[in-house]
Amino acid sequence: MLIHKYVLEIIQEAASRIRQSFSQTMEIETKSGANDLVTNIDKEIEQFIVEKIRAFDATHRILGEEGMSHEGFTELSGIVWIVDPIDGTMNFIRQQRNFTISIGIYEDGIGKFGYIYDVVREELYYAIAGKGAFLNDKPLAKLQPIPLNEAIVGVNASWIAKNKRVNSEKIGELVRTVRGTRSYGCATIEMMFVVTGRMEAYVSMRLSPWDIAAGAVIAKEVGAEFSTLRGQPINLLKQDTFIIANPSVHKEILEDYIEIL
Amino acid sequence: MLIHKYVLEIIQEAASRIRQSFSQTMEIETKSGANDLVTNIDKEIEQFIVEKIRAFDATHRILGEEGMSHEGFTELSGIVWIVDPIDGTMNFIRQQRNFTISIGIYEDGIGKFGYIYDVVREELYYAIAGKGAFLNDKPLAKLQPIPLNEAIVGVNASWIAKNKRVNSEKIGELVRTVRGTRSYGCATIEMMFVVTGRMEAYVSMRLSPWDIAAGAVIAKEVGAEFSTLRGQPINLLKQDTFIIANPSVHKEILEDYIEIL
Repeated sequence: MLIHKYVLEIIQEAASRIRQSFSQTMEIETKSGANDLVTNIDKEIEQFIVEKIRAFDATHRILGEEGMSHEGFTELSGIVWIVDPIDGTMNFIRQQRNFTISIGIYEDGIGKFGYIYDVVREELYYAIAGKGAFLNDKPLAKLQPIPLNEAIVGVNASWIAKNKRVNSEKIGELVRTVRGTRSYGCATIEMMFVVTGRMEAYVSMRLSPWDIAAGAVIAKEVGAEFSTLRGQPINLLKQDTFIIANPSVHKEILEDYIEIL
Repeated sequence: MLIHKYVLEIIQEAASRIRQSFSQTMEIETKSGANDLVTNIDKEIEQFIVEKIRAFDATHRILGEEGMSHEGFTELSGIVWIVDPIDGTMNFIRQQRNFTISIGIYEDGIGKFGYIYDVVREELYYAIAGKGAFLNDKPLAKLQPIPLNEAIVGVNASWIAKNKRVNSEKIGELVRTVRGTRSYGCATIEMMFVVTGRMEAYVSMRLSPWDIAAGAVIAKEVGAEFSTLRGQPINLLKQDTFIIANPSVHKEILEDYIEIL
């Protein structure tokens, strides 16, 4: 598949540039708030990926974190690449690990290809719709059922502490019910932990299309269920709440432990 | 140093055995409760390390997670090895990553050598008291000051949700104050994230001597401060609360955000 090979090349070259940047001094800017950061490296990698996509087919559209196309998206007709050049920018800056390159390719709103590359671990998660999901070319198994009290759940402390978006008391009950919780500071990595059966669920109050587009294609292939926290299908045109989970606990978490405020 | 080289050999051999175990079926038992797990691999690695220590010097004592020496420790005179064959057993079982081998060597209660090996990343953190700390033989820098609102803090969701050990409202304020939080499910890895400046603090309500003995030796060499959450020196003879932090935020976190119940 021409496009599949092309994406793999883009990712390897982008990853190589990111690794080289570790020895350079970074310029860090804030975006919407003090904790919403972007670096010159995010922007350079974005620019590189945009040029590569344009060279592949100039009719393809690009939706991405750093305002890649400067196009206002109101629908997803045609071929749309949904890209995050570096997901987990704070980890990238502070830890130089636990961040990814994320690329999803959609046709008329339907996910066709999904790629999430953990740059430092050199782990490529990917899927071609209907053809299965893979981690470094090893097929990923369908998820097996597991009871909630044996589950590991990815959830950020912000949603367990009192907050304006979700009933933190009920999330606290979830924390006490499950076997353990984790928080890695990178949505795509947490989604891939669910997809590989390392965790059973990941919930967030606020994710953007480029956080979830690639992961959704991969998730479908292993039978992971995903939705907004109100149980609706995801909408790749806006920021929203999000859950991805092993199907045996998806509904139980939503119904018994999530109350959006 | 004879003992240093000997420990490195023990760790490499133990790590190799752990890696081989990934392809085997594990036997998993519960200990104090459903979430307190031990596997046959923990026990086998423990047995291997105990034999190695005994062969090195039969007068050395061994304090460890899986009841290594079956000796009731009431003091730490002489040479005591404080060992966790696998710290992060749940990660080991469920994720096959983010667990370590942890070995601290104390003389009359004073830390002399500390080793924490992240088996899957092949990252060895170690220190010889007074001679600096290292990550894979690269010297670790002294920690630089950082304001609390730029800090990343490691804290498990259990202590942010309502619980009987700490005022969760105040921990919630800490979560809202800092730049970000993380939770990796492995105390030694979280300590090493503080030691390397990837996080500024890690707090726990309940750690055992083998969770902190090796890390404490390494922490001292980079100027990381550690204590119980009441601000007392750590006591390697009992389970207790724990904080390790960049010195610029240690006191502020303890005084403003921690209230033990």
